[in-house]
Amino acid sequence: MKKRMLFAQGGGPTAVINASLAGVLSEARRAGVEPMIAVGGIEGVLGGRFFSLEGMTEFDLAALRDTPGAGAGSCRYKLTEADYPQVAAVLRDRRIDYFFYNGGNDSMDTCHKVSRIAGDTRVVGVAKTIDNDLDLTDHCPGFGSAARYNAVTVRELGLDVRSLPIHVVVVELMGRNAGWLTAAAALARDENLRAPHLVYLPEVVFDEERFLDDVRAAQKTFGTGIVVAVSEGIRDADGHPVAESGLVDGFGHRVPGGTAQALSNILLRSGIRSRSEKPGLAARCSKLLVSDVDRLEAFESGRRSFLAAADGQSGMMIGLRRVTDDPYEIAYDDFDLEAVAGREKTMPKEMIAASGTDVTETFDRYARPLIGATLPSYYTIPYDRA
Amino acid sequence: MKKRMLFAQGGGPTAVINASLAGVLSEARRAGVEPMIAVGGIEGVLGGRFFSLEGMTEFDLAALRDTPGAGAGSCRYKLTEADYPQVAAVLRDRRIDYFFYNGGNDSMDTCHKVSRIAGDTRVVGVAKTIDNDLDLTDHCPGFGSAARYNAVTVRELGLDVRSLPIHVVVVELMGRNAGWLTAAAALARDENLRAPHLVYLPEVVFDEERFLDDVRAAQKTFGTGIVVAVSEGIRDADGHPVAESGLVDGFGHRVPGGTAQALSNILLRSGIRSRSEKPGLAARCSKLLVSDVDRLEAFESGRRSFLAAADGQSGMMIGLRRVTDDPYEIAYDDFDLEAVAGREKTMPKEMIAASGTDVTETFDRYARPLIGATLPSYYTIPYDRA
Repeated sequence: MKKRMLFAQGGGPTAVINASLAGVLSEARRAGVEPMIAVGGIEGVLGGRFFSLEGMTEFDLAALRDTPGAGAGSCRYKLTEADYPQVAAVLRDRRIDYFFYNGGNDSMDTCHKVSRIAGDTRVVGVAKTIDNDLDLTDHCPGFGSAARYNAVTVRELGLDVRSLPIHVVVVELMGRNAGWLTAAAALARDENLRAPHLVYLPEVVFDEERFLDDVRAAQKTFGTGIVVAVSEGIRDADGHPVAESGLVDGFGHRVPGGTAQALSNILLRSGIRSRSEKPGLAARCSKLLVSDVDRLEAFESGRRSFLAAADGQSGMMIGLRRVTDDPYEIAYDDFDLEAVAGREKTMPKEMIAASGTDVTETFDRYARPLIGATLPSYYTIPYDRA
Repeated sequence: MKKRMLFAQGGGPTAVINASLAGVLSEARRAGVEPMIAVGGIEGVLGGRFFSLEGMTEFDLAALRDTPGAGAGSCRYKLTEADYPQVAAVLRDRRIDYFFYNGGNDSMDTCHKVSRIAGDTRVVGVAKTIDNDLDLTDHCPGFGSAARYNAVTVRELGLDVRSLPIHVVVVELMGRNAGWLTAAAALARDENLRAPHLVYLPEVVFDEERFLDDVRAAQKTFGTGIVVAVSEGIRDADGHPVAESGLVDGFGHRVPGGTAQALSNILLRSGIRSRSEKPGLAARCSKLLVSDVDRLEAFESGRRSFLAAADGQSGMMIGLRRVTDDPYEIAYDDFDLEAVAGREKTMPKEMIAASGTDVTETFDRYARPLIGATLPSYYTIPYDRA
């Protein structure tokens, strides 16, 4: 009897999330396995909302690989104790041989728990998160593209405000507890373009007075056109978020938001001209700013996840191990889901500058290869170096 | 004696503003005219902050053409009565034969007034604004690229939230008084992707209750993943902006901002899950989302501005006249600066849907050719049409 696979996606999409799905599907096709998705993540599994992908052509597969947004639909649903037997029953009744769950921290926790009750179904986690906060793996598919977006966007913002009477632009970048994505904005710099001039990470306590001092010092050094990159999740000394969106997600986490506007308001109140930007979700769904390295790794993670399941593995996830920084080389390793589940990797001290408002060379060496091909370059008339 | 030209840029940059500068420079080079910029717009002229571009290579010129941000530096300075004689003196003393001022409404007003007191200097306005609110010209260089950015970004946002438990995403787009750029988000739609589901323009009075009704109706029709595009400048029935940034610009205009967050808060207070986005300046400085049509027209406008000045014209601006929509064909015409100066073109009624929350076919016919080559396409698994 033909074997069957089921694929589902949990949590927020990335620009390359469907590259992982395409990777799984490419191997399933080769192996003659019937491909299905559960629509809307683990909720779709629970509800038996399956959709067959037998009709997809090779052309569709290639187009899907390059499409942002969770192609199979997603969810932020936390399974209750009562749900697990139901998930097990669905996997058994629908005769699913391989189940793949594509997600971040919370989804890997779900995936781990499902793997324990899934009977004969092989359960493999496919790593995905723009936040780069999954533990053990060197980095995570989805991060490189969002990081590239942040670097290019901040570089272009720097060009825009370089010579304008906007004195300070504060740009809010995603990442609630981990600063990886905000730190990636620092990759925007080259010899002529110094944006972002200041970087505020959730790993560093935010202090309003120090912030004002930092901005005034940056204005003294660089003049006008200061770009401040700030993580949406920065917190004060008491651990309170500087701004909150008013939302609580399905896992009970309070959702930050409006942080750039809050910082811009602090500056305005002190008489410093400022405006705020929040590209938000655009960072995780821009097709044109996908990192080629990230896309390849997302596809490979999917492909190798299928091969692992077909090989009889279960309760594991394909992760990345750094072999060398320069030339950039990685290897794919197996990680036990139990070791990954529910853990969160924030930025280590050695990647954060002593000032607390910048990254270090160590971060640059780590992150630069992940954003892919050289960033777009620009010609600036050197009038300010005359 | 070798003739001399001076070029300056006023107001906010566009993604193709330097294509116009490159167009002027390409003809100046051919004519053997000495090229100079005034750094920082009309303030740079006033202060005599000149910078020679004699050293630029052809390669630099090509790279400058493709660089966003005001390459010559910009300003938002309104000349006082006392400044005009000083500007005239600078142009005379520095023996400027041709002066080009690249800007929008306010800059064309400045340019017009300078042309009247400039003595032997030929003064030509070079049109530029992402807002598309310059009168008489069919459209304005800079608009097509920002419009393309908005269409692609909203399409991708629609993909991202299509199947997520985020119910409504409100995205704030630039344009204080004219809705052209926000309307351009509607060009994002295709047969599968319906974002933006609602469009709020500054030409239409905003009403909170009606907004809640609109969103609830959209949720009924489309389910989750609603994208609302809103102009930063929407106002209520009393003419008050829905949100203000706290800034006043150099021309005394109050600067709107935070509108998407304000709308998102309205939804949250009514129990509708929502988040807000504000790509802001990114829309006017993305190199990858430049419209090829816009870039060519910006370059041509610059080139023809030089030729007009060299031909002895002054006090005029090169504008665009629509010949046919399909196939798209335009002609370049001369416009008297006096007729353009200080006027503002908002969206006409026939381009706004009767509902007040969408655009019409007339707008689509007008705007679609301006955003350039076909938008990126995406593959969506048709699970919701099963």
